Amino acid sequence: MSKTQEFRPLTLPPKLSLSDFNEFIQDIIRIVGSENVEVISSKDQIVDGSYMKPTHTHDPHHVMDQDYFLASAIVAPRNVADVQSIVGLANKFSFPLWPISIGRNSGYGGAAPRVSGSVVLDMGKNMNRVLEVNVEGAYCVVEPGVTYHDLHNYLEANNLRDKLWLDVPDLGGGSVLGNAVERGVGYTPYGDHWMMHSGMEVVLANGELLRTGMGALPDPKRPETMGLKPEDQPWSKIAHLFPYGFGPYIDGLFSQSNMGIVTKIGIWLMPNPRGYQSYLITLPKDGDLKQAVDIIRPLRLGMALQNVPTIRHILLDAAVLGDKRSYSSRTEPLSDEELDKIAKQLNLGRWNFYGALYGPEPIRRVLWETIKDAFSAIPGVKFYFPEDTPENSVLRVRDKTMQGIPTYDELKWIDWLPNGAHLFFSPIAKVSGEDAMMQYAVTKKRCQEAGLDFIGTFTVGMREMHHIVCIVFNKKDLIQKRKVQWLMRTLIDDCAANGWGEYRTHLAFMDQIMETYNWNNSSFLRFNEVLKNAVDPNGIIAPGKSGVWPSQYSHVTWKL
Amino acid sequence: MSKTQEFRPLTLPPKLSLSDFNEFIQDIIRIVGSENVEVISSKDQIVDGSYMKPTHTHDPHHVMDQDYFLASAIVAPRNVADVQSIVGLANKFSFPLWPISIGRNSGYGGAAPRVSGSVVLDMGKNMNRVLEVNVEGAYCVVEPGVTYHDLHNYLEANNLRDKLWLDVPDLGGGSVLGNAVERGVGYTPYGDHWMMHSGMEVVLANGELLRTGMGALPDPKRPETMGLKPEDQPWSKIAHLFPYGFGPYIDGLFSQSNMGIVTKIGIWLMPNPRGYQSYLITLPKDGDLKQAVDIIRPLRLGMALQNVPTIRHILLDAAVLGDKRSYSSRTEPLSDEELDKIAKQLNLGRWNFYGALYGPEPIRRVLWETIKDAFSAIPGVKFYFPEDTPENSVLRVRDKTMQGIPTYDELKWIDWLPNGAHLFFSPIAKVSGEDAMMQYAVTKKRCQEAGLDFIGTFTVGMREMHHIVCIVFNKKDLIQKRKVQWLMRTLIDDCAANGWGEYRTHLAFMDQIMETYNWNNSSFLRFNEVLKNAVDPNGIIAPGKSGVWPSQYSHVTWKL
Repeated sequence: MSKTQEFRPLTLPPKLSLSDFNEFIQDIIRIVGSENVEVISSKDQIVDGSYMKPTHTHDPHHVMDQDYFLASAIVAPRNVADVQSIVGLANKFSFPLWPISIGRNSGYGGAAPRVSGSVVLDMGKNMNRVLEVNVEGAYCVVEPGVTYHDLHNYLEANNLRDKLWLDVPDLGGGSVLGNAVERGVGYTPYGDHWMMHSGMEVVLANGELLRTGMGALPDPKRPETMGLKPEDQPWSKIAHLFPYGFGPYIDGLFSQSNMGIVTKIGIWLMPNPRGYQSYLITLPKDGDLKQAVDIIRPLRLGMALQNVPTIRHILLDAAVLGDKRSYSSRTEPLSDEELDKIAKQLNLGRWNFYGALYGPEPIRRVLWETIKDAFSAIPGVKFYFPEDTPENSVLRVRDKTMQGIPTYDELKWIDWLPNGAHLFFSPIAKVSGEDAMMQYAVTKKRCQEAGLDFIGTFTVGMREMHHIVCIVFNKKDLIQKRKVQWLMRTLIDDCAANGWGEYRTHLAFMDQIMETYNWNNSSFLRFNEVLKNAVDPNGIIAPGKSGVWPSQYSHVTWKL
Repeated sequence: MSKTQEFRPLTLPPKLSLSDFNEFIQDIIRIVGSENVEVISSKDQIVDGSYMKPTHTHDPHHVMDQDYFLASAIVAPRNVADVQSIVGLANKFSFPLWPISIGRNSGYGGAAPRVSGSVVLDMGKNMNRVLEVNVEGAYCVVEPGVTYHDLHNYLEANNLRDKLWLDVPDLGGGSVLGNAVERGVGYTPYGDHWMMHSGMEVVLANGELLRTGMGALPDPKRPETMGLKPEDQPWSKIAHLFPYGFGPYIDGLFSQSNMGIVTKIGIWLMPNPRGYQSYLITLPKDGDLKQAVDIIRPLRLGMALQNVPTIRHILLDAAVLGDKRSYSSRTEPLSDEELDKIAKQLNLGRWNFYGALYGPEPIRRVLWETIKDAFSAIPGVKFYFPEDTPENSVLRVRDKTMQGIPTYDELKWIDWLPNGAHLFFSPIAKVSGEDAMMQYAVTKKRCQEAGLDFIGTFTVGMREMHHIVCIVFNKKDLIQKRKVQWLMRTLIDDCAANGWGEYRTHLAFMDQIMETYNWNNSSFLRFNEVLKNAVDPNGIIAPGKSGVWPSQYSHVTWKL
């Protein structure tokens, strides 16, 4: 690629000219090489990828126009020093960067940047090493490009799965680092991915490299590590054992945020519990949700439920097994009678509770008796182990997920509708039957008003549930997309009016959700803005992420 | 008190004049009333308090001169609005404030300010309400002045102890909020106090009031709460159930820090586990520590050890039962033979492992078999339940502590020497026999070089141990105090040279410890300084806390 080549991207960030872009991108090419830079110059490049083969130009599940959130270029740094250099250049031009790890972020915006024209930093393409798996300390250290699948393969290849288990989300293709930093969840006892991290390495907006917690403590100088670049230096041996370090505990600043670019992370792995049994409890009636959640609360708090179990709506399971047309010829939302029919056909409940027992047999036996006994209060409830269910059952998939084996089977529910795409609406709920029923009622009603089936699941944390409403839509149906936009905006407002907030969201709704966190004249947001402007005075890292805008962008109305 | 009264405090902060102080303190008196202001004008006011009756002028365990870290005045705001007003005044004068909750902070500096002449903000005197105990959600919300003892009494008085347990540190007189914010530890499964918080309310240096996590989500407006001041408004019902909220998770910024003044906090309580059994395992030989720690690691990681157990050196237990003179006439450090003799006399080991089992009997039985079986590999090990031990045994105290009942018995070890005072040296250790032995050897050697007995305990977290070296000294012996200063400085350096860092420290050693966290040209500290200067441009809140200084103080050499 000649130095004089002119690039003309489809979109540029506000206030930046084509010549700015060209100068910036030419400088970047000199750093990382042209093989690690792709400029999005043609409509032909905006091809919807798939989960298995993502593209990094935009969000494949575009709820806005396909090119609404569009990168000007995708740049893959080869190493930490490249990231530092790129950050330095971005400061020169005040050019926005949008770091991604793998670029899945499915249902929350994929690889797309919040500000169109941003350069997407593909952190995972070249930085994809499993740097360490420490059996004694039960942790690993990974770069952004390590997927759950990669890490699983690593454990298998090194005969470590007998010692250590992962915790995986529903799909195995995402970045271990990216998911933790976005505060994603999985389903083993280690399901709170953010809680289970210890020690991060971060490139700051000024190009400096920081290690957090005990990572700020240097490993004692040894001859073989003298002269190494900082990013290659060994970590303090306690960096991934104790997260907090000394002084302010700053890690959270780098989660769901734009305060820095995370380049390495320590993640705790679960020791093989020496015994495992997954199970399914089917709840026959729609209203059983209420009683089930009230049964679950004390069991989970008391650790009889050891992991992050899920209460899945019948249609989520049904959608894994077939598309809507395979169940019904109707296009409008399915009726209660049809849902009952599907449940009967699949030998499932209207709600289905997936959990697992961990530990030696005597422990599992006591816990299982406790759980069975408690759930038996619900009339018509049934209990299953995987071997009691068909070969293609969801329980057989969850059996893998709840022991940390990554799968891709749950991809299938996205095809519930033709040209299926999806968004997640993810409010937090109290673990209370009444709250769960109210949140279910509010969200179901609005889904139906938008002409969509309610598909959802409650994932049960220690004291709250992540209620994940899976909004499936036909991305080639422009009217339906507009309805989905209405649905999201309305759900956010409905939930805020009930005192419920979302834990995470798609790019298009970050501002609206941050606006619901407006207690006392939005002091939380304003404090974050002070931090953002202090640590990134040129506003180069992920402007607008989670609704936090640097001052450069304050003159623009960013509301969609 | 007349408006024209002149105050002349014993000490003033740098660059502030007596007239600044007088104007400042008169303004404060107009806000909080003279009954909530005490100016330290006379040497007579510098009286060493005790743990049970602390004074807030200085550190009762003064390792420096008694008046080295001295308040100019103590001010007790009556409510959040007072704190906001005081902060506003402090900005006007750039006057340093040093917020304390109860002022115990025993072994880490007590109520004393880092910068002499600071106004100590006694947050706990008037703000001491248990605002909520929520049984369903298993949490409480407290103000700074609620001690463990207060909260325990509250649970007892409301017949809630059958439902919810506290987690307490060794002594019950400290602030629940203060301990969590300092990232202190206790000994039940909820021993990581920082991990177990959800939702904070913070007065920022600009006087604004912030709520974190889901606390940033307003409770829906209801007629009965309309018009309430922000601090009196009900929290979102999920504020204390889910800690992270949306966007950057900023809570950690307010731990061990000077970024704000915490006025309320949500703390998770443990559901009554429906079964409990404490136990003691005695390890006969000094070197048994190695094998014990290697036995403990997989048990703790695998959750057979459910709580934060401790491995206590014989002298810690011995010191609870009597002072040094009751065991020996020697003033120099006791020999191995003497330690063996004391162990024999007390029917204890050279190390003593205190743990507990939680849950119904069948669970406890399986776990106890696992633990007993594992420890039996150590020759001469013995197992005890409380009823097997004397009435005054440490196990009978730990039996209370490990079920969250606050006690004061452990105060006694401070009297190991006459005029006993103490400091904690608290490095983090890997849960590895080799590391524990190395850290024990390094710290014991230096204690003995300083002429002191080694007294210490390892508290076992999930993947690390807080090694707490209890440095007891005679505070009237000036030569010994100088030796203790040398000891601390030397231990910090020794540990850093081994790659070990401290999790917390006394005021006098904050700078030195922060300097050991100097990876990559101290990028961690410099990042914190950027944050500090951004959120507190006048440097009014706790300058120097954890070694983080605002820019106003950068011209001064603060090294002791």
